[in-house]
Amino acid sequence: MSLLAAVVPLNLLRTFDPTAILTLDLAGTFVFGLSGALAGVRARLDAFGVLVLAVVVGLAGGVIRDVLIGRPPATFRDPAFLAVIAGATLVALAGFPWLERMRGAIEVLDAAGLGLFCVTGAAIARRYRLEIPEAIILGAISGIGGGMVRDLILREVPHVLRSGLYAVPALIGSSIAVAAPASGDHGWLYALLGASACFAVRVAAMRWQLSLPQLPHQSRAG
Amino acid sequence: MSLLAAVVPLNLLRTFDPTAILTLDLAGTFVFGLSGALAGVRARLDAFGVLVLAVVVGLAGGVIRDVLIGRPPATFRDPAFLAVIAGATLVALAGFPWLERMRGAIEVLDAAGLGLFCVTGAAIARRYRLEIPEAIILGAISGIGGGMVRDLILREVPHVLRSGLYAVPALIGSSIAVAAPASGDHGWLYALLGASACFAVRVAAMRWQLSLPQLPHQSRAG
Amino acid sequence: MSLLAAVVPLNLLRTFDPTAILTLDLAGTFVFGLSGALAGVRARLDAFGVLVLAVVVGLAGGVIRDVLIGRPPATFRDPAFLAVIAGATLVALAGFPWLERMRGAIEVLDAAGLGLFCVTGAAIARRYRLEIPEAIILGAISGIGGGMVRDLILREVPHVLRSGLYAVPALIGSSIAVAAPASGDHGWLYALLGASACFAVRVAAMRWQLSLPQLPHQSRAG
Repeated sequence: MSLLAAVVPLNLLRTFDPTAILTLDLAGTFVFGLSGALAGVRARLDAFGVLVLAVVVGLAGGVIRDVLIGRPPATFRDPAFLAVIAGATLVALAGFPWLERMRGAIEVLDAAGLGLFCVTGAAIARRYRLEIPEAIILGAISGIGGGMVRDLILREVPHVLRSGLYAVPALIGSSIAVAAPASGDHGWLYALLGASACFAVRVAAMRWQLSLPQLPHQSRAG
Repeated sequence: MSLLAAVVPLNLLRTFDPTAILTLDLAGTFVFGLSGALAGVRARLDAFGVLVLAVVVGLAGGVIRDVLIGRPPATFRDPAFLAVIAGATLVALAGFPWLERMRGAIEVLDAAGLGLFCVTGAAIARRYRLEIPEAIILGAISGIGGGMVRDLILREVPHVLRSGLYAVPALIGSSIAVAAPASGDHGWLYALLGASACFAVRVAAMRWQLSLPQLPHQSRAG
Repeated sequence: MSLLAAVVPLNLLRTFDPTAILTLDLAGTFVFGLSGALAGVRARLDAFGVLVLAVVVGLAGGVIRDVLIGRPPATFRDPAFLAVIAGATLVALAGFPWLERMRGAIEVLDAAGLGLFCVTGAAIARRYRLEIPEAIILGAISGIGGGMVRDLILREVPHVLRSGLYAVPALIGSSIAVAAPASGDHGWLYALLGASACFAVRVAAMRWQLSLPQLPHQSRAG
């Protein structure tokens, strides 16, 4: 934490205010936009197909979250989100062959986006007075929404349903974020811890190919 | 009706108040959650994939209904819905091999969920002052939403589009529910009748493989 | 424009009021409903499957637009939309073999719907005080929403992602609509110009099979 304290003013670590949520939300949007754009390039879409896929994947998690909370999607009121996705698309188009050579780059980005969105989703749900269990699940849904929509559009059974260690880290991350004291103190700290824990569990699961044990009747059936 | 009157206090049969709607809505959520979870086990998802699919299928109908009405999805304000879906998932995981041996069990459950959701969807739409034709169609959409989303996620062309005797019973059920007098008297009775009629038509269609006559140019083409 | 002025009263061309938006919106709903119904007949759905697909495709663009703006979907408050879709379904069922012989009829209809929805989507977004870049993108999303949902349900990778000259005309159309002076004068004129430009670019792209140049690393890879 001392390294972190060196770059982030300490008082920022104490509160998790709307500005902080917005910052993490924009970071998650960039990451999912990039993941969507790269998936689009790989699926041989043209430049505008890539942009559309980046917009859909980058915004889906947040839009689903806001619709489920019942507030107007914040994303379309704030030009920053579209700017961030346009940037992510340019990065994907410019850096594609290089990004593609880095094995697993998209999966790592996806893990980062998962961590950021599950934490901001849970925090926003709490701010709108949802109970703790709903906030945890809503955080996880915010995190996995973008990837699910990407897979649906590209006609794959969503990865999140295939690999338990996709939903589990999201639930861990949103649980930590929700555990922040109601006073709002240290909310930012909990958010960073939650996002990091989600990211770490997800990356570890990919690295060592961890998965939940199969259900007994499935392994018997197989 | 005398049997029904024996178990349900008569005054409850006269009004279809929010509590009554909530009860039927929870029952439909359980049934669709179970249907989603069983489909997930059969598709060889792991435990969390099964849970996610149960959540999505259990909540999709109600969320689509609330979004189309333009009110915040009630589901995420009330922990009962998530508890009911968690229960349905546990039942599916524990009872899978046994439930699987019962032929057509899921289809019958699906028919019950269809009946419950088309009736509550239509009643809620009327409560929010939608006109009768919209309320009927919205009821049907609430009923078929969960199954459509399940089929989309598992990459099947939605059953509801293949078999006319899926949308027809839903329209019958929501039409009966909407026929209740505006005074609110006997609303509960109409709801039960609508749900039962929808269920009966749907089950009969499955039992005797009824379907709408093919369109003329299709049969010629085939 | 003199021809246009001859059929449309001149004062109508000056303002783009809610009635004008509603008229174009209904026209777009008819066109997308017809496109959805014809796709349903071709996919060998039965009569009710065809109707359901017409409803979903006809309403999806407007519902997505309203959800993203954060207002209750207007569609379900106004029986005219459902009446228009029912009419489109009847036209599709009655005229199917004849409509099918006209090569590309659906694609041309789709182009018309695209033009109408991108213009009304952008105008409504401006009316709800979204900024210009959001309004342009929201207009394009309104236009492509119906077709994307149709392709998802029929399990095709959305055409809009395959062909850049689907999103590009939508963006052109909504940009022209948004360029209307804030005073509201001539808004109707800009809307017609935008819809026509979108339609013309889309039809030209289909006629001469125009497409965006492939991304360099894709053509290398292929």
